[in-house]
Amino acid sequence: MNSELCRKLGIEFPLFAFSHCRDVVAAVSRAGGMGVFGAVLYTPEQLRTELEWIDANCDGKPYGVDLIVPTSLQRQDAEPSDEQLLGALPGEHLDFVEDVLARSGVPADDLAERRKAMLHISHNLNNAGADEMLDVAFSFPIKLIANALGTPPQIMLDRAREAGVPVAALVGSKKHAERQVAAGVDILVAAGGEAGGHCGEVSTMVLVPEVVSVAGDTPVLAAGGIVTGRQMAAAMAMGAAGAWCGSVWLTTAEGEPGQKIKEKMLAASSSDTVRSRSRTGKTSRQLRSTWTDAWEAGGPEPLQMPFQSLISEPALGKIEKLAEGGHEGAADLATYWVGQGVGLMNQMSSAAAVVQEFKQDYIDAAERLMATLEG
Amino acid sequence: MNSELCRKLGIEFPLFAFSHCRDVVAAVSRAGGMGVFGAVLYTPEQLRTELEWIDANCDGKPYGVDLIVPTSLQRQDAEPSDEQLLGALPGEHLDFVEDVLARSGVPADDLAERRKAMLHISHNLNNAGADEMLDVAFSFPIKLIANALGTPPQIMLDRAREAGVPVAALVGSKKHAERQVAAGVDILVAAGGEAGGHCGEVSTMVLVPEVVSVAGDTPVLAAGGIVTGRQMAAAMAMGAAGAWCGSVWLTTAEGEPGQKIKEKMLAASSSDTVRSRSRTGKTSRQLRSTWTDAWEAGGPEPLQMPFQSLISEPALGKIEKLAEGGHEGAADLATYWVGQGVGLMNQMSSAAAVVQEFKQDYIDAAERLMATLEG
Repeated sequence: MNSELCRKLGIEFPLFAFSHCRDVVAAVSRAGGMGVFGAVLYTPEQLRTELEWIDANCDGKPYGVDLIVPTSLQRQDAEPSDEQLLGALPGEHLDFVEDVLARSGVPADDLAERRKAMLHISHNLNNAGADEMLDVAFSFPIKLIANALGTPPQIMLDRAREAGVPVAALVGSKKHAERQVAAGVDILVAAGGEAGGHCGEVSTMVLVPEVVSVAGDTPVLAAGGIVTGRQMAAAMAMGAAGAWCGSVWLTTAEGEPGQKIKEKMLAASSSDTVRSRSRTGKTSRQLRSTWTDAWEAGGPEPLQMPFQSLISEPALGKIEKLAEGGHEGAADLATYWVGQGVGLMNQMSSAAAVVQEFKQDYIDAAERLMATLEG
Repeated sequence: MNSELCRKLGIEFPLFAFSHCRDVVAAVSRAGGMGVFGAVLYTPEQLRTELEWIDANCDGKPYGVDLIVPTSLQRQDAEPSDEQLLGALPGEHLDFVEDVLARSGVPADDLAERRKAMLHISHNLNNAGADEMLDVAFSFPIKLIANALGTPPQIMLDRAREAGVPVAALVGSKKHAERQVAAGVDILVAAGGEAGGHCGEVSTMVLVPEVVSVAGDTPVLAAGGIVTGRQMAAAMAMGAAGAWCGSVWLTTAEGEPGQKIKEKMLAASSSDTVRSRSRTGKTSRQLRSTWTDAWEAGGPEPLQMPFQSLISEPALGKIEKLAEGGHEGAADLATYWVGQGVGLMNQMSSAAAVVQEFKQDYIDAAERLMATLEG
């Protein structure tokens, strides 16, 4: 594609695949897009293992890493101990989760153990932990590093500059975009309210031209609701330099959710998602399920990050495991982050095939638009 | 433009201007788009006066009318009397409004009188009233009739067929679209959740391709957040046949809101709107103000249509009048329906100039997109 961003990053097609699944990352990079590995749920050791695999399987094509690096990395709070973290979880929330599981016949037997295994999420969000993650990321020849939430701290920008790696950052409003440009971010990802995962309220159709209007020379990727090449073309007609997609990979053969969740996504309409603080403590869009319904209908006030993740992730891990085993109550509870684009995700495919479909659909859309100017 | 819909409707550029203001309707039609007069707040006599003016001022170009015709027009309920309507308004709601006004120093002296002057809104939504409005509309050479809420009743479709007038209908979900196509609607208006006025939750970026996928040969207009030609191009790249815009006309010189509301809109960001049932009883998107804040923070549960309008419209009419006179509390309260696109509406213009800007911006966007395929 005739694109400055593509030339700069050494890619063929400016489709960015945010995924927690290494297979998706490598497949998209091999197919001409750029896979970006979402690392926040991993330990530094796990991240190293995954990046080694990606590096060995991407045919030398560019790939990136996405982290949540706290803006306040300079903040020198002492990191809470595991006991302090676990002790800070209110009984009301723990009881609520047990009750929701019990109502669907899901045993809560190993939740405490699962919670302990999740403590590294908190560590990743802290100073020392984020630093360790950056150490691992920059020990690989990554071509992009992204910060999923908030302005990247100066130390992240400095380390990226030193390594010659462009820094991308997600923004949900024009004001965020102005702040990030001022901070020196290289690529803005304008994420509309229809996006899966953490999202704001302004829609992609409005946010993209708004962010482009203040981005100056900084390229803007459009995110939120985009699961087809025609939507990518739409975003680029509005001035975006490419598309950043997360949801569309979830229902590929490689995607990380279990088969039961994939089936629910393939059957879901665009109205079947919900924005809720119940998963991470910040507003994120998820597939509606009896789990999200229970929180919306009368759950306790979600906790701040990272505490709410220590409430939700252990239970959701258990739920997914039982759902895969055929447990009906667990299947009803099962959910995952996904955007409204889920309504357009109706067929299982492979990640490489999705990239090919995007390319053809993009060309068709551009030609359809150009044809309106003929004659 | 090379467009089947343009040929069918006898217009040059498939930009549809929904407006309660006759000047906007005539100006857009004269400029090559199609003005569609939003008539629901008018009496049949007022509608006749406005359409006479439009007909005399549109240079023979096509224009349309938009109504809210109840799906259940066949329902033969006896129409409630004015006394029954007014008597059905709960004291809690009337008191709340007086309290909100009092807190901002706005006198509630003539609210009862203003309420009486609004009773025709209820009449319009009833069988006999809707029929009278259709009588007036079809006595003019309109080229489009639109139903703003729900599936048009068979009698509306029959009368339109007889008059040779295509029927458009707003849809907020794929399911609505399927229902409307089955009912025989000629043009679907896919209205995303970022739209001003009544709106659903699915964003324009997702809803447009979703509706197009089930529309078959029925043309789809994209609505919601679109206030520029590049966004219109985006929608058409996704398969829309044109754009249906309401908000963008509000800040034109001709637009119906008072100067104070226009100034608030020009200064607003895309984050300054709110979806609320407090204006009509159904969810509609409005400019955030101390009025909408009061309802969101602790107002009584909004009533059903048309009762909530009889609560809100008289107060908002009073507020706008005082705001125009320089009353500060009223200026803070003042609000109007507007979509998230308000964040991109930053300069006062004329309706004709907006159409010209749309055309140029559309061409630039199509060429920008095509350029990505070159080389």
